[in-house]
Amino acid sequence: MKYNQFGYVKTPFKEQIKELESINFLPSDWQDQTTADLFALFVGNILAEAKTYEAKQVKLAEFAATDQEDLSTYLKANPQTISQKVFYNVALQLLGYHVGYDYDLNDPTNLMQKNSLSFFKDAEFNKDTLIQATYRLLNTRSKNGQTLIDVMAGKGYFKQFYGNDKFMYFNGKSLPTFDMSKVIREVVYVESDLDTDEDGKPDLLQVTIFRPYQSNNFKFPALYTADPYFGGIIDNAAKNHSVDVNLEDASVAEEIKYEAMPKVTAAKPSSEDLAPSEEAVHKAAYTLNEYLLARGFANVYAGGIGTRGSDGLRITGAPEETESAKEIIEWLHGDRIAYTDRSRQHETKASWCNGNIGMTGRSYLGTLQIAVATTGVAGLKTVVSEAAISSWYDYYREHGLVVAPGECQGEDLDMLAETCQSNLWDAGDYLKIKPKYDTMQKKLLAKADRKTGQYSDFWEARNYRHHTDRIKCSWISVHGLNDWNVKPKNVYKLWQKISKLPIEHKLFLHQGPHYNMNNLISIDFTDLMNLWFCHELLGIKNNAYHQWDTVLWQDNIYPDIWHGEPNWNNEMGHEEIYYPEADGSLLKEGGNDDAKLSFTDQGGKTFKEAKISEGQWEYEFITGKEKWTDQQLRFVTDPYIHPITIVGRPKIKLRVSASLAKGQISVALVELGQRKRLTPTPKFFRDQIQELGYRFGTQYLQEFIPDKITAGKLITKAHMNIQNYADMKKAKSIKPDEFYDLKFYLQPTFYNVPAGSQLGLIIYSTDQGMTKRPLEEETYTIDLSQSELRYRQM
Amino acid sequence: MKYNQFGYVKTPFKEQIKELESINFLPSDWQDQTTADLFALFVGNILAEAKTYEAKQVKLAEFAATDQEDLSTYLKANPQTISQKVFYNVALQLLGYHVGYDYDLNDPTNLMQKNSLSFFKDAEFNKDTLIQATYRLLNTRSKNGQTLIDVMAGKGYFKQFYGNDKFMYFNGKSLPTFDMSKVIREVVYVESDLDTDEDGKPDLLQVTIFRPYQSNNFKFPALYTADPYFGGIIDNAAKNHSVDVNLEDASVAEEIKYEAMPKVTAAKPSSEDLAPSEEAVHKAAYTLNEYLLARGFANVYAGGIGTRGSDGLRITGAPEETESAKEIIEWLHGDRIAYTDRSRQHETKASWCNGNIGMTGRSYLGTLQIAVATTGVAGLKTVVSEAAISSWYDYYREHGLVVAPGECQGEDLDMLAETCQSNLWDAGDYLKIKPKYDTMQKKLLAKADRKTGQYSDFWEARNYRHHTDRIKCSWISVHGLNDWNVKPKNVYKLWQKISKLPIEHKLFLHQGPHYNMNNLISIDFTDLMNLWFCHELLGIKNNAYHQWDTVLWQDNIYPDIWHGEPNWNNEMGHEEIYYPEADGSLLKEGGNDDAKLSFTDQGGKTFKEAKISEGQWEYEFITGKEKWTDQQLRFVTDPYIHPITIVGRPKIKLRVSASLAKGQISVALVELGQRKRLTPTPKFFRDQIQELGYRFGTQYLQEFIPDKITAGKLITKAHMNIQNYADMKKAKSIKPDEFYDLKFYLQPTFYNVPAGSQLGLIIYSTDQGMTKRPLEEETYTIDLSQSELRYRQM
Repeated sequence: MKYNQFGYVKTPFKEQIKELESINFLPSDWQDQTTADLFALFVGNILAEAKTYEAKQVKLAEFAATDQEDLSTYLKANPQTISQKVFYNVALQLLGYHVGYDYDLNDPTNLMQKNSLSFFKDAEFNKDTLIQATYRLLNTRSKNGQTLIDVMAGKGYFKQFYGNDKFMYFNGKSLPTFDMSKVIREVVYVESDLDTDEDGKPDLLQVTIFRPYQSNNFKFPALYTADPYFGGIIDNAAKNHSVDVNLEDASVAEEIKYEAMPKVTAAKPSSEDLAPSEEAVHKAAYTLNEYLLARGFANVYAGGIGTRGSDGLRITGAPEETESAKEIIEWLHGDRIAYTDRSRQHETKASWCNGNIGMTGRSYLGTLQIAVATTGVAGLKTVVSEAAISSWYDYYREHGLVVAPGECQGEDLDMLAETCQSNLWDAGDYLKIKPKYDTMQKKLLAKADRKTGQYSDFWEARNYRHHTDRIKCSWISVHGLNDWNVKPKNVYKLWQKISKLPIEHKLFLHQGPHYNMNNLISIDFTDLMNLWFCHELLGIKNNAYHQWDTVLWQDNIYPDIWHGEPNWNNEMGHEEIYYPEADGSLLKEGGNDDAKLSFTDQGGKTFKEAKISEGQWEYEFITGKEKWTDQQLRFVTDPYIHPITIVGRPKIKLRVSASLAKGQISVALVELGQRKRLTPTPKFFRDQIQELGYRFGTQYLQEFIPDKITAGKLITKAHMNIQNYADMKKAKSIKPDEFYDLKFYLQPTFYNVPAGSQLGLIIYSTDQGMTKRPLEEETYTIDLSQSELRYRQM
Repeated sequence: MKYNQFGYVKTPFKEQIKELESINFLPSDWQDQTTADLFALFVGNILAEAKTYEAKQVKLAEFAATDQEDLSTYLKANPQTISQKVFYNVALQLLGYHVGYDYDLNDPTNLMQKNSLSFFKDAEFNKDTLIQATYRLLNTRSKNGQTLIDVMAGKGYFKQFYGNDKFMYFNGKSLPTFDMSKVIREVVYVESDLDTDEDGKPDLLQVTIFRPYQSNNFKFPALYTADPYFGGIIDNAAKNHSVDVNLEDASVAEEIKYEAMPKVTAAKPSSEDLAPSEEAVHKAAYTLNEYLLARGFANVYAGGIGTRGSDGLRITGAPEETESAKEIIEWLHGDRIAYTDRSRQHETKASWCNGNIGMTGRSYLGTLQIAVATTGVAGLKTVVSEAAISSWYDYYREHGLVVAPGECQGEDLDMLAETCQSNLWDAGDYLKIKPKYDTMQKKLLAKADRKTGQYSDFWEARNYRHHTDRIKCSWISVHGLNDWNVKPKNVYKLWQKISKLPIEHKLFLHQGPHYNMNNLISIDFTDLMNLWFCHELLGIKNNAYHQWDTVLWQDNIYPDIWHGEPNWNNEMGHEEIYYPEADGSLLKEGGNDDAKLSFTDQGGKTFKEAKISEGQWEYEFITGKEKWTDQQLRFVTDPYIHPITIVGRPKIKLRVSASLAKGQISVALVELGQRKRLTPTPKFFRDQIQELGYRFGTQYLQEFIPDKITAGKLITKAHMNIQNYADMKKAKSIKPDEFYDLKFYLQPTFYNVPAGSQLGLIIYSTDQGMTKRPLEEETYTIDLSQSELRYRQM
């Protein structure tokens, strides 16, 4: 498994010396010391757990230098140079590898090559090479995925600098020189311009801050996570709407308007600045934030309107939600008032903040980054938006249909609002807010219109992509190419706009579902974030913009390969056109078959009888288990002779008729072939623990790994309401058994189809995990002569 | 779900006042204050996160007193008494329950009854009742399973006492008044009397200590966990021995002798006592230990011989292993020397230790408690031995057969020795020790004798039960009734001896497999341990011996019921005898059927073809899936009209013949019936986080819950080598097709068979998950006239 490293910043020797001296690793009289003594000193320094010179000396005997000698014995002969083999034998032990199990003492660089660890090729290391190799080693990723300097940090190496009132850097990244046992954890209440609970008073928004105590002495940047789950999650999944209902005629959908909530004006900040009087009881929600907290990036969490400790109502996806998330930044930047408690008596300021704010978080938390960034709020310098929704229609709807996020059948805006309305748990608030909350629940359900699934002004107000022109901060998006919760269209359509803005922008696409990527073996994402935030929030010139490609996507066959690309769009590669044929083949040279093929959809009937999970259904359905083949049309290519890469959004053209005056069409593009595929989520390496700081949190290393043999895998899919054949935003009446031409895009992808695999195109109706599951049968007919699949191939 | 509480110590009112005053909860002038003011003060104190008087006052408005008023408004009227309803409405909110979701403001005690929370019945609370009800409330378990006082502790309430150099108690339990941000984490090296690596020098044993910094000022008790996994786990599962082999003639087994390793004599302690020079880098291995660390019980970990940081060889189960585990206690008790580092230059003492040592840990870690306790070492006051092996033969063998621990097919003493020989990872040691380690691996494999599975002197030396007469400490055993890794026989046979010793002894039997029980909803195990260790190691008179029954076992149908019993043995209840009949029935009034029934065992053949897990096989096999019924004989009772409880060890008598001159017989007793059964492992409640201290570790609440409907469940089973028909310790030759009488006990149990379920007796040979899986077929015949099942019924 390759420990790829994009975050190592090339550093001149002179600068290396300076950095090593600044962290008390290299003594200033190093030129007067022998090479052997320096090597012993370096190893001793790395062994931060040994606290005295004697303890460090004794530990040298625990390292093997060669297959005959331990390091202590080897150094006793005072060699003038250190052989490459000895250096890397010891280096690998320091990096956490085990002799005999991981590598052979006679060939250490073999493992280094295998694991993509950088090493010097000289046979013998003189003093200069020793220093350079050691500098590189400190910046090399250990078996646990962290750089060796981070491993040392986890053992307390940087305790010696806790008293220094300044940031310290190594290889362009901030060092954990802040005492995590003394973190200040406090709560303040920001006054909003919103009055979503309509009590005539501005809503108060609870903000939780974790910051190094040194931030009482000098100013720190802030990482803000707008997290509606922070105050708690109301578990209402059992109340999700039934999807076992028939489709309804969508042509009767009414115009639904977004309605704004009342606004008020918050008080203006005065000169008062009292210390907060409430300690935070909630936990950090994200290990990346904690890692960066130890390195001097204050962590700020706020749930926003309707969440525990805050006033108001949760209004999923609405501009009010954006406003409430944005107002926290206004306080951090000094532009808005906050109080020490809910009595609004005393003001408190973010006087510890240097005014430079970045945002982090995944899913809803990533979504709110897009929301806030598209307001152009002052102080926000960068976002790292993971698995984010860019338009709520693309989360709960698709092409005129109600289409659920994966594994969330029946969820909708109202359910998510309840999930996050955790101020109901503050029972005093419950008394006041419950009736208004009930009204809002009804309103959200009615306006979201689960009956027809049509687009409207209500959804339009929940599409952040309309406001990308206001974005002023730099941008990182992260998304799983197998994310069927927040589907990849969300990041793709946003990226088409972001990538054209005059801001620095980067995109990471990993092989996960709805997942974080900050502790994978195959990429040093955490280090990249350290580099990035140092550049954006602390003004460090560390080459952060140029260390890696604009787009990095993780290979779906070899997860330790990350492909660098200049972009992700539908202009890359060249177009291929495939035609479905009556014999079930999918041909490049087709298109002349004028057969009409039919299938009869059973809604949810057969699925419910089978008593299997949605995931199991999908696997059986796409791999062609006979039980399901009469509810689909299925067209398969020959096995590919050469591997290909599919990029962007495949496009489907279908001429369809339906037996009822309504209908939903689903299309899946799948890769078929018996082969080992990756685990759907990364496997944890529970013996590889990463320390986020010194005596602070931990996390496990993880990675996708080739798993059991399967028969196929979904590449991408899409769903469409036939009634939207003429206009995606407006349904029309249709007639039974009359043909209509549908053209729509599938979810975007990067996908390597290996030689030997086949592409399959599956046309069906009910998607058990996503669409409504009608109670009635419906027969669909496809006119093959007017049907085709186009995709971009690299 | 009932939050049962065994650890609440009945306390007179006067004593309550004293305790409440001692923790600064009740002001000394309380008699001069109004009832309403006192109530406000109490709630404010519980809200430890609000740090000022004003902040606490403001927070009162966040609580609902009635369905009309918040607490702030209610108290403004200055009521002379507090109504029961208001008190418990607020109490439930403080305990973490949610109005509307968990309970109704008009009937708070309804939930309290449902969840087994104690409450006062008075309609109105005067000042005295208010104080008593509040004292009880502080000692009531919150929704997260912890007492409210522990929840307050997690928010920093006891920070105010960090400067006090003494232990503080509340309701008989130690309070977390020790600053966990300043824990001393150090490593020392104890000198052993062993020389298992035969280098002529005493083996050094690495010991890791976590202790409050206050232990530099006064003395603390120690919880010692002998943990062979502490230094790391060598993952060698892929190298496990093949079990796809034929049985061999066991009558040729040779006498195998235990062979001792050389002994040397460690240096004697002098007056020198330097501070350790090495900081601990390893993590705590057990949340119960951390919880108790915050409450002043120092945590001590040592891997023992062969583990990382220590000298020597791992010799699974051997007396040398016991000796090395015991020697740590000798150092803690002041009777043995330890050094600051491996150079043996400077001595360091456990001068922080009060000489009272308890032991904790599960599995191998529980096993070593039995090992050490049976030496009678001075200083060891009590053990809490969870899921422990009491004889290694009962772990890897059974009745003359090689029988694996569940899910560990092919594992044996040698494999486990490698797993724990983590000093191979200290590469300097690797160079020295590898050849000796290789020799020991061969020796362990040869002496364990996987060919015949027979008992020997080698195994005899690994049976701790022979030395229970030396035990001087009090005793707690914990075991899962569904533990098929360390099978329940281990704890049962030990308990038969322990329960007759003149020491205090307790037994907990939960519904888990190989699992901890310290964070279950249904029992306050953590509190009980606090109570127990305060009693045993700090000399506190807190009624610990009498708070709960000698034996507590968790119900297998309603997991929130714990049954108290005076004992666990085969004299409880009355005996029932059942006879297998030719028609497949299992009858009480039978025994007259002289039919002979046969089945042909397929070894591992059909199982391997089926490509299913061992667990899936077991479920299909015991519930009678047709695919497997020709490899078993199956006898089933009528459905039970009344529920019964099976206790102790059922006994089977079988007259058997086999088609080969060797054979293995398995017997399973199962409960059959379509019903919801419990989850095999507890479900985590991830929204219910327990704080182990203040800004320290956390764990989730968990519990077994009724899960999906299944067709049956294994109650107990056993396996026997036919060649041991005459003597369990010595096999004889047998002749094909000749009958032999087998009599053996099944694993012990407590099991409730509900009305409507049936008992099934299954006789078979190859147990895919445990026995060898022969490559050859063998036919077994049972003479029903000489076969019967006996069990004890309550």
